[in-house]
Amino acid sequence: MSEVYGVRRSRLRDRCAATGSAAALVSRPANVRYLAGAAPPGAVLLLGPDEDMLLCPRTPSGDPADGRLDEEVRLTALPTSASDAAVAAAEMARGTGVESLAVEEHHLTVARHRALRSVAPRLRLDDLALAVEQQRIVKDEDEIACLRIAAEITDQALGELLESILVGRTERHLALELERRLVDHGADGPAFATSVATGPNAGRAGHRPTDRRVEEGDFLSVCLGANYRGYRCEIGRTFVIGTTPADWQIELYELVFAAQRAGREALVPGAAYRDVDRAARQILDGAGQGVALAARTGHGVGLEIDEDPQLAPAAMGKLDTCVPVTVEPGVHLPGRGGVRIDDTLVVRQEADGGPELLTITTKELLAL
Amino acid sequence: MSEVYGVRRSRLRDRCAATGSAAALVSRPANVRYLAGAAPPGAVLLLGPDEDMLLCPRTPSGDPADGRLDEEVRLTALPTSASDAAVAAAEMARGTGVESLAVEEHHLTVARHRALRSVAPRLRLDDLALAVEQQRIVKDEDEIACLRIAAEITDQALGELLESILVGRTERHLALELERRLVDHGADGPAFATSVATGPNAGRAGHRPTDRRVEEGDFLSVCLGANYRGYRCEIGRTFVIGTTPADWQIELYELVFAAQRAGREALVPGAAYRDVDRAARQILDGAGQGVALAARTGHGVGLEIDEDPQLAPAAMGKLDTCVPVTVEPGVHLPGRGGVRIDDTLVVRQEADGGPELLTITTKELLAL
Repeated sequence: MSEVYGVRRSRLRDRCAATGSAAALVSRPANVRYLAGAAPPGAVLLLGPDEDMLLCPRTPSGDPADGRLDEEVRLTALPTSASDAAVAAAEMARGTGVESLAVEEHHLTVARHRALRSVAPRLRLDDLALAVEQQRIVKDEDEIACLRIAAEITDQALGELLESILVGRTERHLALELERRLVDHGADGPAFATSVATGPNAGRAGHRPTDRRVEEGDFLSVCLGANYRGYRCEIGRTFVIGTTPADWQIELYELVFAAQRAGREALVPGAAYRDVDRAARQILDGAGQGVALAARTGHGVGLEIDEDPQLAPAAMGKLDTCVPVTVEPGVHLPGRGGVRIDDTLVVRQEADGGPELLTITTKELLAL
Repeated sequence: MSEVYGVRRSRLRDRCAATGSAAALVSRPANVRYLAGAAPPGAVLLLGPDEDMLLCPRTPSGDPADGRLDEEVRLTALPTSASDAAVAAAEMARGTGVESLAVEEHHLTVARHRALRSVAPRLRLDDLALAVEQQRIVKDEDEIACLRIAAEITDQALGELLESILVGRTERHLALELERRLVDHGADGPAFATSVATGPNAGRAGHRPTDRRVEEGDFLSVCLGANYRGYRCEIGRTFVIGTTPADWQIELYELVFAAQRAGREALVPGAAYRDVDRAARQILDGAGQGVALAARTGHGVGLEIDEDPQLAPAAMGKLDTCVPVTVEPGVHLPGRGGVRIDDTLVVRQEADGGPELLTITTKELLAL
């Protein structure tokens, strides 16, 4: 992997040079990890003209969940008196004689930015803006391999849950069990807080598990994902509890399923983000369920669970190949519950078989 | 509780008025919750001259883990087109005709701050600095009651673990089981990522659980805490696995225990933060174990697990009554393991019985 990180850093360095910055300070943890291989808590990456340095408030623990630092990056522990790695990096940049430093203004707080200015008043601070995030959108095959493993782990954890007795158990317990199973199967941890929603809660985006117990006749919706070597995927499924789903449940499920399929099928290289969103959204709109819909129907995944692109009505940009995204429309009917169906897919050329579905758990409406 | 929040907001408003700001924008989630009773994701609190408003990117879920919004705060949902509640709040403040707005420069990013300035260019943006954090240091009895319950839950979860078979189980599994037990006993969730460390990992601060299995003769150190209604406590204990601890284990344990007791006994109203730290630290220093010691030996807890005060050599300030803090010295010997002992206590007058120990699990060296 070592070469990979070096290539990423050169690309960023070229970009900085093109905009007139001689050095860059990367502070957002996922960006640090993307460029250096590891992001111990509080560490920042200084991309200098001569060498790249990871400044760490304390010795990295060697925890594999933090990643492994690229050999070409020099690890520099801060003196215990230094309170902020970014400030120490600015002092170091000043020492090397560079005139300008690009910083992540969308991540640094106003107070930290001011501290940087005060230790290096003659250093010009530019905005690196979302340069690293943009670089992260298209994944290489190593990254996709990590996402694929994350999805396998996720499918396994979910599959095991479906074989167990669900009636009478609480949302919280089911969520904790799913997270334990993710770790059992090799995840570094859950990719995000696992959501389990039953009955009237089912289908709510981002629902946090409560003490409500699963009952006969409920919709049960779950949303989970594994974090594997930093890469995070997402799956969402909705089931019915009991022997036979009610008519309204079948109808709602088929509607959301149709919307989700339309979204998946719209995942072709060159498609506008907003058109993918519209493909899913218009099916729900057409059935009068558009109002209940979230602001977006999908998003990128990678080192963070919520990355660019956003699949939303006002999103600008077009899909490339090798961009992993979720497609996750849902409908929630207040007081009754609802349905969410969520997959992680990678955009691929049609000649390569079209979008690659990473989360392969069935999307049939199962009655459990 | 409603009155409590109103009183807190008035205090902050008085402070802003004294520094010339007519309105304040609170964005840090724990601060929002402290002042408004609830902090749904992405919400900000606008303390205006006439009314207080919680601006929310989407309708709060009613999740009790988010807290319950004080009735006197007006809930304002953002239009779906608005991307940032803080920016919407600045527009609103501009609309009310105030000339200045105090913002949390230690929380707002440079990019968000710029967006605020651009929607309200004639509004003067002051720095609210750590005004709310400072207000949060001394807790009222309702807050301490929540911490007390959080500690009870934590003691229960830990006590149950100690009754189970430990040899052969991995750090990860033990950590997951502790978190499940916290939730079983009524926690809204863990207060922070549970740490379980065995053998050579034992005693490392902030160790993240690995797949290492518990073995005979190991030190086993655990650090966990419950989140109850937003309030977070912390306990750390170290045990020996097997029938009889080795001499070096007993010696190291007694040393850390003595340091921790000295720290606890130094918790009197009016004591300088640094003196509490020194009380614990000098015992370890005296035994030649000071080098391995962390930058601090304790910290405040409350709506965040790591709050002011810091019990550290360079910390400025003195303890008040009703300040909950941890006392958590530890020693880690590379390759061999180590000991941490960590309690949450509330500073009380000596006439009231001295420091109130919230985490009551025994600190005897148990052989499990």
